[in-house]
Amino acid sequence: MNEAIEVTLARWKARIDGELARVASNGIALPESLRDAVHYSLTGDGKRIRGLLVMASYDALGGTRDASQLAAAVEIVHAYSLVHDDLPCMDNDSLRRGRPTTHRAYGVAAATIAGVAMVALAVTQTVRAAESLGLAPATSRKLVMVLMQASGATGMVGGQLMDLENEGKVVSVEQLEAVHRAKTGALIAASLTMGGLAAGGSKQAVDDLARAGESLGLAFQIHDDVLDATSSSETLGKTAGIDAALSKSTYASTLGVDAARQKGDKLVADAMGSLKAAGLHNGPLMELARFVAARQS
Amino acid sequence: MNEAIEVTLARWKARIDGELARVASNGIALPESLRDAVHYSLTGDGKRIRGLLVMASYDALGGTRDASQLAAAVEIVHAYSLVHDDLPCMDNDSLRRGRPTTHRAYGVAAATIAGVAMVALAVTQTVRAAESLGLAPATSRKLVMVLMQASGATGMVGGQLMDLENEGKVVSVEQLEAVHRAKTGALIAASLTMGGLAAGGSKQAVDDLARAGESLGLAFQIHDDVLDATSSSETLGKTAGIDAALSKSTYASTLGVDAARQKGDKLVADAMGSLKAAGLHNGPLMELARFVAARQS
Repeated sequence: MNEAIEVTLARWKARIDGELARVASNGIALPESLRDAVHYSLTGDGKRIRGLLVMASYDALGGTRDASQLAAAVEIVHAYSLVHDDLPCMDNDSLRRGRPTTHRAYGVAAATIAGVAMVALAVTQTVRAAESLGLAPATSRKLVMVLMQASGATGMVGGQLMDLENEGKVVSVEQLEAVHRAKTGALIAASLTMGGLAAGGSKQAVDDLARAGESLGLAFQIHDDVLDATSSSETLGKTAGIDAALSKSTYASTLGVDAARQKGDKLVADAMGSLKAAGLHNGPLMELARFVAARQS
Repeated sequence: MNEAIEVTLARWKARIDGELARVASNGIALPESLRDAVHYSLTGDGKRIRGLLVMASYDALGGTRDASQLAAAVEIVHAYSLVHDDLPCMDNDSLRRGRPTTHRAYGVAAATIAGVAMVALAVTQTVRAAESLGLAPATSRKLVMVLMQASGATGMVGGQLMDLENEGKVVSVEQLEAVHRAKTGALIAASLTMGGLAAGGSKQAVDDLARAGESLGLAFQIHDDVLDATSSSETLGKTAGIDAALSKSTYASTLGVDAARQKGDKLVADAMGSLKAAGLHNGPLMELARFVAARQS
């Protein structure tokens, strides 16, 4: 990795982590157990890929301020999705990034409620971030719409339920793709879109970012499937092999590990090609795309 | 009840119901089970008190358009809260308004996910309602903030968890009041606030509405406790006596039924007095306040 880019991404990640820690400790008054469950869920270890994509696309479109507050809003939605994904009625997982899952640590009711509180928090965080970036109220409104559409029934949570319903079924590659475009792709595409909107990008540029984000999001999920099938729990920091244990169809089980990996790589190459063609290939954005293809955990 | 007001409220309720049915059938693409669970949860029978309060306060501050889209946004949040309140990890209830609860009808995972999808939907609905009312983006932003702050950790869902945590404990009246101000009061206060903001009310008028809403919301919950303790499941359309079964401290168990009823009535009188003093005593708003005190189900 180019060292300067590495330093930039590390600095951005530290800012996002700092913002998440600040939000987790602020303004969440009652009750204590809810505050603790939200704090625990927001401050878990993570790569902050979605937040970094917000900051990279903001930067690629010429944004000059610190977009870490906005980046944190997307990470709050992502953190919520992990909390609910792990619930007993969903994947029933007990380990996440090397720690007990939120419901294991705080109980199912607190985890369920903390998840919803985090969605509400992500919305207020988006509005506040837009204010601190000096954006017009109309842009703030757009950011909220993009984030909620990506999170809701037609996006992430719709994908979560489709994913659950596919357990134990033989699923076609097309059906898998529909699930993952919704479950993972929508929020990753939203991250790029939101960074672009916040930077005041043209409709064309924001559309280009969104399209690249969709490819990147699908690639991310494909590599996730491959990693689940090929890694140890220790490397992943979460339970490995859980897809097979849940009889879940994945890209790895449906296409085979090698073909899945190739498909993921091709999607990343497509995304990078589109970004380049659109003149949106700043260093951090390209580096994050490369990371999606190459990551080991 | 004054017949003209009765007709007005019935007409408004029909509009809110129509809007909820429209939203429930639109734009929630995938998967089918999620669409069905959301539709089921949004179109259950209900009094739409919160939505009617939005329309009444909009009207009281001189709003002249149809605010039923905005009213529906608040009702979507309320409907979500019922879905999650009934979950096995919460009150574990099987009957709601004479029908099986959403998780009984569609399973726990679908109900959990449908709830979150409804929160996201309430946000996009608020933004769209503000647009259709011709409001400035800054007002749209305020409406979103008010709704999410009332729904989140410091409001409704914070109150839900405090309520759960109080099960089996002896709780003081002050603690009960804190729970119910958050769990029920916050969204009712938000309903009045949102109607006032949408109508372009002054800060003073909107604050007066919010304060009256807080009293009214607490009164609503106190009467709910009294009804749970004194009614049959048939009259309520939901399981009666569930508070006692869950060893929940309520106003009825803590103060006794008569004193609780008196406290509720006094709060309603206070709210009506404040509204009158502020010149905000239009017919529907007063009628809704009276209804809170007198309702039988």
